[in-house]
Parts: sequence; C-alpha cells; structure tokens
Amino acid sequence: MKITPYEVEGQMDYNKIVKKFGLSLINKGLLGKMDKVPRMIENGYFFAHRDFDRIMQDYKKGQDFAIVSGRGPSQNIHLGHLIVYKLVKEMQDIFGCYVFMPFSDDEKFFAKDIGYKKAQEYSLENARDILALGFDPKKTEIFIDSMHMNPTLYNIAVRAAKKLTMSTVKAIYGFKNEHNIGLHFYPAMQTAHILYPTVKKGLPVLVPIGIDQDPHIRAARDVAFKMRLKKPASIESRFLPSLSGGGKMSASGMDTIYLNNGPKTVKNKVQNAFTGGRDTLGEQKQEGGEPEKCPLDKYMSVFFEQEGKTRKRRGKCRKGEIMCGECKNILMKDMNRFLKEHRKARQKVKIEDFVRD
Amino acid sequence: MKITPYEVEGQMDYNKIVKKFGLSLINKGLLGKMDKVPRMIENGYFFAHRDFDRIMQDYKKGQDFAIVSGRGPSQNIHLGHLIVYKLVKEMQDIFGCYVFMPFSDDEKFFAKDIGYKKAQEYSLENARDILALGFDPKKTEIFIDSMHMNPTLYNIAVRAAKKLTMSTVKAIYGFKNEHNIGLHFYPAMQTAHILYPTVKKGLPVLVPIGIDQDPHIRAARDVAFKMRLKKPASIESRFLPSLSGGGKMSASGMDTIYLNNGPKTVKNKVQNAFTGGRDTLGEQKQEGGEPEKCPLDKYMSVFFEQEGKTRKRRGKCRKGEIMCGECKNILMKDMNRFLKEHRKARQKVKIEDFVRD
Repeated sequence: MKITPYEVEGQMDYNKIVKKFGLSLINKGLLGKMDKVPRMIENGYFFAHRDFDRIMQDYKKGQDFAIVSGRGPSQNIHLGHLIVYKLVKEMQDIFGCYVFMPFSDDEKFFAKDIGYKKAQEYSLENARDILALGFDPKKTEIFIDSMHMNPTLYNIAVRAAKKLTMSTVKAIYGFKNEHNIGLHFYPAMQTAHILYPTVKKGLPVLVPIGIDQDPHIRAARDVAFKMRLKKPASIESRFLPSLSGGGKMSASGMDTIYLNNGPKTVKNKVQNAFTGGRDTLGEQKQEGGEPEKCPLDKYMSVFFEQEGKTRKRRGKCRKGEIMCGECKNILMKDMNRFLKEHRKARQKVKIEDFVRD
Repeated sequence: MKITPYEVEGQMDYNKIVKKFGLSLINKGLLGKMDKVPRMIENGYFFAHRDFDRIMQDYKKGQDFAIVSGRGPSQNIHLGHLIVYKLVKEMQDIFGCYVFMPFSDDEKFFAKDIGYKKAQEYSLENARDILALGFDPKKTEIFIDSMHMNPTLYNIAVRAAKKLTMSTVKAIYGFKNEHNIGLHFYPAMQTAHILYPTVKKGLPVLVPIGIDQDPHIRAARDVAFKMRLKKPASIESRFLPSLSGGGKMSASGMDTIYLNNGPKTVKNKVQNAFTGGRDTLGEQKQEGGEPEKCPLDKYMSVFFEQEGKTRKRRGKCRKGEIMCGECKNILMKDMNRFLKEHRKARQKVKIEDFVRD
C-alpha cells in the first residue's frame, strides 16, 4: 500500500491510514451533533477528519466557517472530480458557508509538460464545470492563480514560505533538484490558498479532500500554527474505484466518465463496467450479489441515491432480486440525466460573478 | 579574491573579473557613439557591460529602453546606496528612459531575521529616499513586492521559475536545504522584476549594478533567452571603498554616511577617514599625495565633481599643492549640502505618484 499526494497504489486499508496519518474517524457522536448531515458524510464516503468536530461545535455557537476546495486544472474533467464539489455545494446550502475555490494553473505548469496559457484555459473551463453545480455567487469566490494574484494571497504565501525549509518540502513532496524551483515553492502557494479565508475574512477553514492529499493539510496546519493562525480543519474521503474496479477514476482511464461524454459513450462505458457479479444469471439469483465489491454501487450511492434507496437496493442485490444489468441501466440513466442537465447549467455560468477584487 | 552576490572579499583585480565573468569593457569606441555620456560612466565608475552597445545602437535608431534598478530594502540607507540611482536619474534625463524600481521586501524577509511588516516599512522609506533624487513620475514606476504584486509580474516569475532548476539556483546562490523555500524561489521573482518592462511595455532593459551582482544578471539573461525575450543588458560598476579604506561602504560600517546623519556626524566620519596621505605635512608637500589610494578621492569624483575638476584636484594632490585636510573639508561640505537638500526633497515625494495599476 503506497499513498502520497502523487501516487495511490495497492489495496487500501483505511483504518491503517487513519491511524498512520493521525486522523480521527467521523463517528456517530460527531454526526449526532449536526442538525443536518450532508449526504456524502452520511454514506461514509467522507469518513475521517481533523478538527471537523471543532468546526461544528463553533458553528453551533454562531461562528461561520469557510470551505476551501481547490483544483489543479486539467483538460478533461470527469465525474470523479465533481464529487467533492457536490459535497461542498450541499454544505453551502446547509451551513451557508463561504466557499473559496483556487485553481492552481501555476502548479500544473510547473509539474507538467503543458503551456501556461493552456493551463489557464483549463482553469476557466474547469471553473465553469464546477460552478455549474449551482454555487451561490454571493458566497463563492474563484481564484485562478495566473489571473487573480494579489498582494493578500501572495503575502500569505511569503509568510508561509519563510516557515517551510527546503528539507521539509523535499521530505513531504519528494521533489528532486532536477525539478524546477516553482514546484518547490508551490507548497507555500497552496498553503496560502488554504489560509486565505482566515486571513482575509477571519473565518476558520474546512478543507474536504481525498485522503491521499492529507500531507498537504498536515503541512498547511503546521505552517498555520507557526503563523499563529487557526489551523485548517479537514474532512477526508475514500477513493472512488474506476468503473473497471481497479484504482481510482483517473484522467487516463478508458472507463472514466468525462463531463463531455455523450449518452452512447456513457452507455458503452457503463455496460463494460466491472460489477463483481456472479458468473451466470442463475448463480446471481441463487447466491445474490456483493455490492461491497461493485464500483457501480459506489457511484450510485455516493453520487445519485438517497440513503434509504441505497439500503434497499443493496438488500435486493444481496438476495439476488436485482441483476447487474438493471443496475447498469439505472446508473447509465442517472449519469446521462445528470450530464445533460449539467451541460445546460454550464452554459449559464457567469465566471465574473465569482471573481472578487 | 572572492566575489559572489553575498560576499566581496580581498583586493579586486577588475580585469580578471571582467574576463572571468565574460563581460566587456566600456571602451572609447562605445563612448564615442554616445551623444552624451553620463558622468559615472565617463569617470570609469561604471566600467564593464553586457550588450550596452546594443542598447545604445538601437536607441540611436529610435528604440527606447527601460532601466530596472531594484533594491533589497534596509533600515538605514547610505550614500553608497544612492550612487547607482544618481546614474539612473542622469540617464533618465539624457535618454528619457522608463525606470522600473522593484523593492524586494519579500526577499529581505526570506533572507534576514526581520518581520515582514518591517521590511515593507523599509521599502517605503527607501523608495522615498531614492525618489527624492528627482525622478520623473511619468516615467518612473515603483513596485514593492508586498504591496503591488499583480498577475503580470507573478506570471513572469512563474514562467521564469519553470526554466530554473533547483540545481541551477543552488549552484548560483549557494542556498542550502535548511534555508526556506522562499529564498530558493526568489531568483524567479528577481528575474521577473528585470523582465517586467520587456513583457509589459515591449522595452529592452538595461540594469546598472555593482559587478558583484553579475551572477543575477547572467541567470536573468539565460532565462530571458529560454523565454524568447530580449536578454537584459547591464552596465557594471566598481566598488566604492569605505571611508576607512577597506571593503565597500556597508550598512554595518561605522564610517558609513547614512542619509539621516547630521552635519556633526558627517564631519566626524570624514575627519577620521583614511586618505592614503603621507605621515607628515612636510612629506605630503614634498612627495605629493596618491589619490588612487584615497577613498575621499572616490567619493568626490564619483558623487560630487565634474570631470575637469577631478583632474585638476588630482594633479594638485600629486604635486603636494593640496593637503588631505582641505579635501576633507571640501567633501564634508559637499556631503552636508547634498544631505540637507536631499532631506528637504524627501519631504515632498508623493509615493503614490510612482505606483501604477
């Protein structure tokens, strides 16, 4: 099992990771204190945290919080990328929180063989895709590094950079001397993104991330402590498997559902998905299915279903009352409905409504 | 002899340095092509260059150029610091060139045990001292990193950073892994300062510097080449000795003339100066003085005198017709007159006139 911000390999033992990283589990006690539990926390997709209990306690006492949810822009954004933003949108609806969305086209340029202009274009396109989920322009700010750099953000990066030695950064990120100096400096910029709402608006920050990104949060928390700022909290998610069952949905996977995939492409990809079903229909009816092994189950439960529906479907699957073909049909329809609506919403997004001075 | 951007040690052999660094001397051929020669080039204080001949040739053909002259802000600015800006001011008067003045309080903060706010204050104070020399607000722009960071400048730094590997930066600047990541990134920011007028206004850039800063110029030229921008040109100066004869005038020297030194302090410092004069008045009259050994001679010739006057004074000194006490009196009066006028001019500077959007 290998897990760093740049690599995820092997079968995940989430309990081991939580222990190793020093995270806490989101347990019933914590859920009980929330008036309304966002769907992706309720279903256990986001399952671990740092200081999320503090954020919720303070919120109950009237202290608003901000969510920071950034993105390294990429050419093709896929369903897997949108999941975290679905959660963020739901949390904005429930808690009214300010959402800060940085787009690190600078880091993409440093890390990849890609032009800077191209990375900026991706930022704008990705922002449009994310904002199409329906964020409140009054409470949502996008920040594209190449377009919106300002003294406030730069100065947080400067203060953070002074607290980060080259040794520390090399240890966390594994950068080599052959890499460019931009890549080595970027952790300061990322920390600045995370701390921006705290510095600019005095709001405590919550960062929802995939658990593989935890080292970034640890670094940002260390630096925040040294800068005498409130440490950012996090909620951390499992990985979503690819439709073929292995690894996480990735930009390179043939089985990845991109936002610009048409109904036929989606149909093909879902039809070819791995389900963990039995060899024959007969066996499936007799022995029942194993939803815990099924990637379709994850997409349905995390992205589309409400809790009761998931429970019901899984029960039927285990008893052999529902076949994989039916689930594929349901998921395919849900995906295509979502993608169609999303493409429509996308046209109406006015990026400038989400940019602050 | 040791010469890096952070250290200057031993007796300087300027011809050796010029050869080693691959610089060209500013020779009579080049001077002959200039309609008017700025005083500090005429007197040989600025004596070496890279591509200054190209800048002058193109200027004759109608191509304007910009000067970039930045400063790492410090608490007490001294006469030695102002010298380069006297040249820049004269060149603005002669050639009408645009002057871009970056103040790197970020780098000061990275490199020294100093607060960021303090470094910003120094930037503002230093800017005031420099602008008091009479720069044209229409053709002069100051840029304090902590106050004026913008996407244009940041994006040049990003593009430069991608072209600079950590190995290169470590080799040029000698940074260690114990140093913070801000210090390691700063060369990209400095390159951005140097290339700003080229990117923003399409102007070729000339950078006047002390010859110990040449490694910065070499790095910036390499990066400019890789970015397909016109390489910045430079003119490079000798060191000015301290009044006690050793090293260069420094912020720590007891013999350093600070801009806030009153007449009595200046008098004391000049009275105690080393002159290279003979042991007794009698010997001085008989054998004559040695102006080439005398720090007073440097300050008089570089800062205060016109060419004819310098020649005359040196002649008299060599013949024993003028004693060190007289020179001390002249220099002391010149310095005090300059400092008095400068303090008056300083009050009238409106920083905001020199800030662009």
